[in-house]
Amino acid sequence: MWNENRLTNMLNISYPIIQAPMAGGPTTPELVSEISNYGGLGMIGAGYLDPSQVKEQIQAVKALTNSPFGINLFVIEPPDVSEQVIQKSYEELGYFREKLHVTNSLPPLNKSLDLENYVQIAIEEGVSVCSFTFGIPPRRMISRLQENGVFVIGTATTVKEAIAIQDAGMDAVVVQGSEAGGHRATFLSPEEDAMVGTMALVPQVVDNVRIPVIASGGIMDGRGCAAAYMLGAEATQLGTVFLTTHESGAKHPHKKAIIEASEEDTVVTKAFSGKSARGIKNAFIGYMENKKDTIVPYPIQNSLTKAIRKEAGDQGNADYMSLWAGQGNRLNKVCSASEVMDEIVSRMRELL
Amino acid sequence: MWNENRLTNMLNISYPIIQAPMAGGPTTPELVSEISNYGGLGMIGAGYLDPSQVKEQIQAVKALTNSPFGINLFVIEPPDVSEQVIQKSYEELGYFREKLHVTNSLPPLNKSLDLENYVQIAIEEGVSVCSFTFGIPPRRMISRLQENGVFVIGTATTVKEAIAIQDAGMDAVVVQGSEAGGHRATFLSPEEDAMVGTMALVPQVVDNVRIPVIASGGIMDGRGCAAAYMLGAEATQLGTVFLTTHESGAKHPHKKAIIEASEEDTVVTKAFSGKSARGIKNAFIGYMENKKDTIVPYPIQNSLTKAIRKEAGDQGNADYMSLWAGQGNRLNKVCSASEVMDEIVSRMRELL
Repeated sequence: MWNENRLTNMLNISYPIIQAPMAGGPTTPELVSEISNYGGLGMIGAGYLDPSQVKEQIQAVKALTNSPFGINLFVIEPPDVSEQVIQKSYEELGYFREKLHVTNSLPPLNKSLDLENYVQIAIEEGVSVCSFTFGIPPRRMISRLQENGVFVIGTATTVKEAIAIQDAGMDAVVVQGSEAGGHRATFLSPEEDAMVGTMALVPQVVDNVRIPVIASGGIMDGRGCAAAYMLGAEATQLGTVFLTTHESGAKHPHKKAIIEASEEDTVVTKAFSGKSARGIKNAFIGYMENKKDTIVPYPIQNSLTKAIRKEAGDQGNADYMSLWAGQGNRLNKVCSASEVMDEIVSRMRELL
Repeated sequence: MWNENRLTNMLNISYPIIQAPMAGGPTTPELVSEISNYGGLGMIGAGYLDPSQVKEQIQAVKALTNSPFGINLFVIEPPDVSEQVIQKSYEELGYFREKLHVTNSLPPLNKSLDLENYVQIAIEEGVSVCSFTFGIPPRRMISRLQENGVFVIGTATTVKEAIAIQDAGMDAVVVQGSEAGGHRATFLSPEEDAMVGTMALVPQVVDNVRIPVIASGGIMDGRGCAAAYMLGAEATQLGTVFLTTHESGAKHPHKKAIIEASEEDTVVTKAFSGKSARGIKNAFIGYMENKKDTIVPYPIQNSLTKAIRKEAGDQGNADYMSLWAGQGNRLNKVCSASEVMDEIVSRMRELL
């Protein structure tokens, strides 16, 4: 049965369908709780939140659902970049600040992230799942989560990364194909080597790990979920399709750009955050193509562009926002999250 | 039923499984006939053959099977490159000629291709299918093939290309995802925009054309074929998995490189032919990374590197050969073509 397996049993969910934890606003308590109430697994994208915000978000979701949900955290190595290099990158971005009349000075750069604080909150608040992106947390942290009843998921873009996640003792692995929108989760290989399509990547990972594999990247509907099931995945994780739902917190110009985009309109860029991520091409990405040497590593570039992205969003200007989207974007619709789930579940019932 | 649809009926084949027409040697009469005898569709990669060779190959296949098979042809626009630029490219490649002790001078460059001659042979010899790559042949040629009972297939890498193929009156469309080995079939967009993963691309094409969609790119076994079926494809086309079969004409170092490769080891390069193609990274590609401005358009670059590739193959030197392979290469095995077909058919029977 496609809707009953190790994952659905362990997580106590009705359908092996996970809403991708998209950091930066889209995963509102309404979206997360709607997916969980439906019987899937909602996920809070907590990567950019500080601990108090994470706690708030978790409590807001808990107010709307009694079903399992999860949070996603980023595993970040603090980059080694000089103040001079950062200052230069900040200055290069002056072009955009002028265009948008943003007046902020060099923001305080929070280079390190105390993951322990976040994990403590996840445990205290009793979230069901904690997933990690960009790396593997310390083993003792994984064990501590598991001892407290939290299911731990890693994110891989290659077979090697999936094996490392299994070897670290995690409970399941999200496999991210090259079609996926937003940040590439790659942490062991050069990012360009780890651009493997979902169709090719999933069965190769399935053959090489024992833990459940969750397929992601270009999956937008029941057809994609059924296809992933055929490849051996025990669940699917969908992000882009939920971005244009009523419940999504994505800003209006972002939603509009996705609805108007085709599969040819996305590109993988480091321009916004310093880490490779797939989004719809716009003026910001085009301008930064010629300034690649001024892009500093994640998360510093992300901090430097934050005020620009925020102001562009507030002004309804898609030219300078990060318009994260996967390659399946022709399948996006403006609808409710439960309509997306309805289509997936009914199509999978029909196909499988 | 997965093994009975418009395509299997029109082509009179038992299984909707097509062996990809890999030009340059792999599609021996033994491989092509074996696939057709099994009940799939074998394809001769005729793109680099002259008309007399194509005729010979067709007759060799006909001696081994009474079942339908096809040929694939390239639709090439003669590029506009000056003799000086070509001479410079030829000289840049001197490094490899020296390494391999290749003594050839600048080869005669056959820039144009009279497709009519090939089509005439296809008709005279009564092949069942003629597929085209890199573009759309003239409408009168498509009609002539169809009037003579030949089923005509185009190759697309985007929704736009698939629609153009349908609008030109072709009977079906192969959709090539970014995972695919060998040449990118892209002809309407910049090649980098058309790197869309199979999982995302197939359903988007299915939603936008009425003709049968044949999925390709990263499909290596029954799991991949079943997944493509879920996405709405009416057949699958597999190339890389057949490269390492006993019947394949791929040279030994090529087969060995595929067997030893992982999903991270391929790259898309124009170094060998002037057109983007996916193969396993080697010294030739690495060296040419820094000489990109000396690469001339297809098919001239292909002619310029031909003697080098051939000699490297003869010397068993994988460093300077084109090692075409898709991203699913961990699933390659040394086995017979019928063992590949056995696995696909039995797995699809089990899954669907």
